[in-house]
Amino acid sequence: MSAISNDEEPWKLTAAEALPLLRNGTLKAVELAQSLLTRIHQRDENVKAWVWLSPSQILQQAQVLDDIPQAQRGPLHGLPVGVKDIILTKDMPTQYNSKLYRSDTPINADANCIITLRQAGALIFGKLTTTEFASSKQGNWHQNLTANPHDFERTPGGSSSGSGAAVGDFQIPVALGTQTGGSIIRPASFDGCYGFKPTWGCISREGIAQWGWSLDTCGLFSRSVEDLDAVLDVFQVLDDDPIPQQAFKIENAKIGFARTHNWSTAGPGTQKAIEKAKELLKCHGAVVEEVDLPDDFSNMLEWHNTVLNGEGRSSFLGQYRTDPKALHESIQGYVENIKNVSRKDQLEAYDNCARLRPVWDDIASKYDMVITPSVVDEAPKGLENTGDMASLLVAVGSSPC
Amino acid sequence: MSAISNDEEPWKLTAAEALPLLRNGTLKAVELAQSLLTRIHQRDENVKAWVWLSPSQILQQAQVLDDIPQAQRGPLHGLPVGVKDIILTKDMPTQYNSKLYRSDTPINADANCIITLRQAGALIFGKLTTTEFASSKQGNWHQNLTANPHDFERTPGGSSSGSGAAVGDFQIPVALGTQTGGSIIRPASFDGCYGFKPTWGCISREGIAQWGWSLDTCGLFSRSVEDLDAVLDVFQVLDDDPIPQQAFKIENAKIGFARTHNWSTAGPGTQKAIEKAKELLKCHGAVVEEVDLPDDFSNMLEWHNTVLNGEGRSSFLGQYRTDPKALHESIQGYVENIKNVSRKDQLEAYDNCARLRPVWDDIASKYDMVITPSVVDEAPKGLENTGDMASLLVAVGSSPC
Repeated sequence: MSAISNDEEPWKLTAAEALPLLRNGTLKAVELAQSLLTRIHQRDENVKAWVWLSPSQILQQAQVLDDIPQAQRGPLHGLPVGVKDIILTKDMPTQYNSKLYRSDTPINADANCIITLRQAGALIFGKLTTTEFASSKQGNWHQNLTANPHDFERTPGGSSSGSGAAVGDFQIPVALGTQTGGSIIRPASFDGCYGFKPTWGCISREGIAQWGWSLDTCGLFSRSVEDLDAVLDVFQVLDDDPIPQQAFKIENAKIGFARTHNWSTAGPGTQKAIEKAKELLKCHGAVVEEVDLPDDFSNMLEWHNTVLNGEGRSSFLGQYRTDPKALHESIQGYVENIKNVSRKDQLEAYDNCARLRPVWDDIASKYDMVITPSVVDEAPKGLENTGDMASLLVAVGSSPC
Repeated sequence: MSAISNDEEPWKLTAAEALPLLRNGTLKAVELAQSLLTRIHQRDENVKAWVWLSPSQILQQAQVLDDIPQAQRGPLHGLPVGVKDIILTKDMPTQYNSKLYRSDTPINADANCIITLRQAGALIFGKLTTTEFASSKQGNWHQNLTANPHDFERTPGGSSSGSGAAVGDFQIPVALGTQTGGSIIRPASFDGCYGFKPTWGCISREGIAQWGWSLDTCGLFSRSVEDLDAVLDVFQVLDDDPIPQQAFKIENAKIGFARTHNWSTAGPGTQKAIEKAKELLKCHGAVVEEVDLPDDFSNMLEWHNTVLNGEGRSSFLGQYRTDPKALHESIQGYVENIKNVSRKDQLEAYDNCARLRPVWDDIASKYDMVITPSVVDEAPKGLENTGDMASLLVAVGSSPC
């Protein structure tokens, strides 16, 4: 008999709660996997977050992990991780939600981030929906039209639609996603979980579909900050001084609120959430300040768009030449450069973003934390459109150039 | 009987010479392939540029191309292209010159650039040597120690060692290579052929090993400028105004010579070559000028190095966790960050490079062309060390940030 009974519902555990139990054997990897499979079976008929899931393969791999002696277990031993379906997994197909990749035969290589997770003992669980090549919208082709787990009539956000929905719905404790505009931050916000978009290049992109080479970033979804910590440690995503001199306290912390130049688009949900956050922080003794951004920052979304259109010309060229009509028209448009982005426009956009980066660093250095809206409002109704790419800082944060 | 006899030695043809003959059927893809295979058979015992070459597979694919009706032939119909062995090819193994990838089983996916080439009718010929993961030096592991085709005791350069050597030795008309520091420009210079390193992102990197995410660039080797034109057209690498108002003429052209701050390291070979180029251009009526770069440019190589060390931390993490001792110690060093590059150092290096980019653009705009040394001197003796990463403009050119 295991020390964890079915009544205790292991699917409810965060990664940080499950990991010590998995390490010391109180919770078997097989038990946790079975519990999650039961949860998925109950819920996914409506949520539709998974595009590839093999219970027999999962349980077999979980058993292999359970057989590893305790002393040899990795830092993520037995942790189930869901994977956005634009990231290569050698034992599961990668279909990119593209008509061109319908095959059920896996590409027999792991993305670099998957190799790292497996070496740490993670259980690569299954593949999660994405918009087509993490671009465009949901429901173009053969993959699920994923729903928001909190309201099946609303979008879960995208492009990491399945990752946000599955984590938010307790179907998996941790999932990998990617972001080029707001594709991690937005679904995390809509689905009620944490989304972490690391700085560029912290997690290797080798083996992940490319859209904007200077923008694409691999990141994480989870239901606790401690979970993010545990996984980011495995990826060596550390501060320069990983052990701060003193623990962060809200009391007397200086917290900036950057409403950004896009604030006029913020709906009542976002406005209320921001006001509530301010009040809560003030109540706990934080010093809250509005951050006024120089006018130049109002151009960030436009520059981001220019960069993305320029970079999209080459990213989808191979698929376009294979069969243009198999691609969504927005993706055809990148290759055809229908927005007429010149090399000069693209270079100017890189230079403009780069010029503002130290300006932003200087502003940010005056605060212990800067808070900015992650979405324009709560998840809109309808499943195909995954919502607007929102806040300015998403653009600053995802553009190194 | 073909219109091309064996005496005419098709292996001598450049791509631009071969393409019209292949298109109209005067030269069969099978004949060109056979001629190249003969050349390779004669030469490669000494040059050792190839790590994977299947004559039967090549001839079979060439026959498939020959069977395509003329009206349906692509712009690169029948053109043999060699591929650096860090670029995925679904029908040939990709071994990265790494102990960890010794398998002869292909990863069953094409890199995006390979898809594009195949769609244009190119004949993907075989895989060419690389240094380990396009980093480090030659001869670490199981792949060939490639020699310079013009002097077997000298290095062919690297990391695209096989690409430069095979093209320079008339074993293949065109090859793909990659550059993070000087890995296209240097072997092209040492092996006596053209090397083209496009601006960042012009050719998709999806399916190519990652070292420096902001630096890695896919590019080309050939034996004529027209060859580069033909292949770059297929990749949509075009100027904003692809049809110039008037053809470029050397007479009265304003040509800058940027000796760079690394000129003190230039050996007699490079010094003589630069002086000879100046004299030739002057004789043909060009206006030749020295380009003085602001002092800040003297830091470019150091910043490039900081960026590369910072980015290498994540690029090789998966392989390191799999088996650190299977990697060259320099690659272990990136993951372990033995140079102690902080996130702050890395960010400052990005900002510094970005700050100089518009300065450089302004300088360059005053000239019709700027010439800079591609290497510090002629190819050094010995095969393991592929030579120094040289000129400052290599660093400027390969750093978008």
